[in-house]
Amino acid sequence: MAETIRIIGIDPGLRRTGWGIVESLGNSLRFVASGSVCSDDKATLASRLCQLHEGLSQVLHQAMPHEAAVEQTFVNKDATATLKLGQARGVAMLVPALAGLPVAEYAPNAVKKAVIGVGHGDKKQIHMMVKVLMPKAVFDTHDAADALAIAICHAHHRQSVAYRLKQIA
Amino acid sequence: MAETIRIIGIDPGLRRTGWGIVESLGNSLRFVASGSVCSDDKATLASRLCQLHEGLSQVLHQAMPHEAAVEQTFVNKDATATLKLGQARGVAMLVPALAGLPVAEYAPNAVKKAVIGVGHGDKKQIHMMVKVLMPKAVFDTHDAADALAIAICHAHHRQSVAYRLKQIA
Repeated sequence: MAETIRIIGIDPGLRRTGWGIVESLGNSLRFVASGSVCSDDKATLASRLCQLHEGLSQVLHQAMPHEAAVEQTFVNKDATATLKLGQARGVAMLVPALAGLPVAEYAPNAVKKAVIGVGHGDKKQIHMMVKVLMPKAVFDTHDAADALAIAICHAHHRQSVAYRLKQIA
Repeated sequence: MAETIRIIGIDPGLRRTGWGIVESLGNSLRFVASGSVCSDDKATLASRLCQLHEGLSQVLHQAMPHEAAVEQTFVNKDATATLKLGQARGVAMLVPALAGLPVAEYAPNAVKKAVIGVGHGDKKQIHMMVKVLMPKAVFDTHDAADALAIAICHAHHRQSVAYRLKQIA
């Protein structure tokens, strides 16, 4: 019998980290919640990372997901931006890992392919398809919508033989 | 009366994060300990970040430093390396911040200036000066020596008026 798996998708950013939670049962998807965790850009970097840590920990504590998925960041920006993003991403991956969740990573084009059907497309198309796939989905920011798309991507991929073998290995 | 301040310097890296602990009393410096926390490069990124988190948490638990200092990473490498470093750095800053320690950041040339006396110089010079400043210092890796240099830099800077004002603000 198929079991319901609750997935958190995370779209990391130092200023704002989006999160989206979906439930996957066989081929069906159900929207659970979405939102974003912000850090105060006037605070020190260490405080900002603590704020992201605390916010994401609260979300995990309340939503109790079974698995996590984070987007593999696109590194075409300048080095300073990449470093900032890396620091936020380190925290975004650490929090679910410390909670004992398996943390999968997906490239942006894998997320697009899972949601739109092709490996390219703009944010608007992604958000539209998130609504088509889960009509009850609510998101107030782009980051939350992106995080839901990452969670949907993981729901698709986790059923693949390759993913299952990786979890056993 | 001056009080003894125990400082942890951290040189972040995904494969190996160096740490060094010194005690500062007035103008005198005392070596306490140094070492490095490694992550298994065959493990997933999330697991590696957990390994760094666990290793650094253990060091903090045992050494009980009062303040932390982390080098501001040089971002002249390729974007993938910068992102990796950023992720490790995020964890390296988060761990002491979560433990309630103030976390200072220093640019590489500030560290060099504090240790060598000028803002440029190679690793060998830094390591030699760490031994001159603290003859009892023991370090088995470059990262541990660099971490001690960062701790020394913080010991110098924390006495400045600017630093004190920042802590009050």
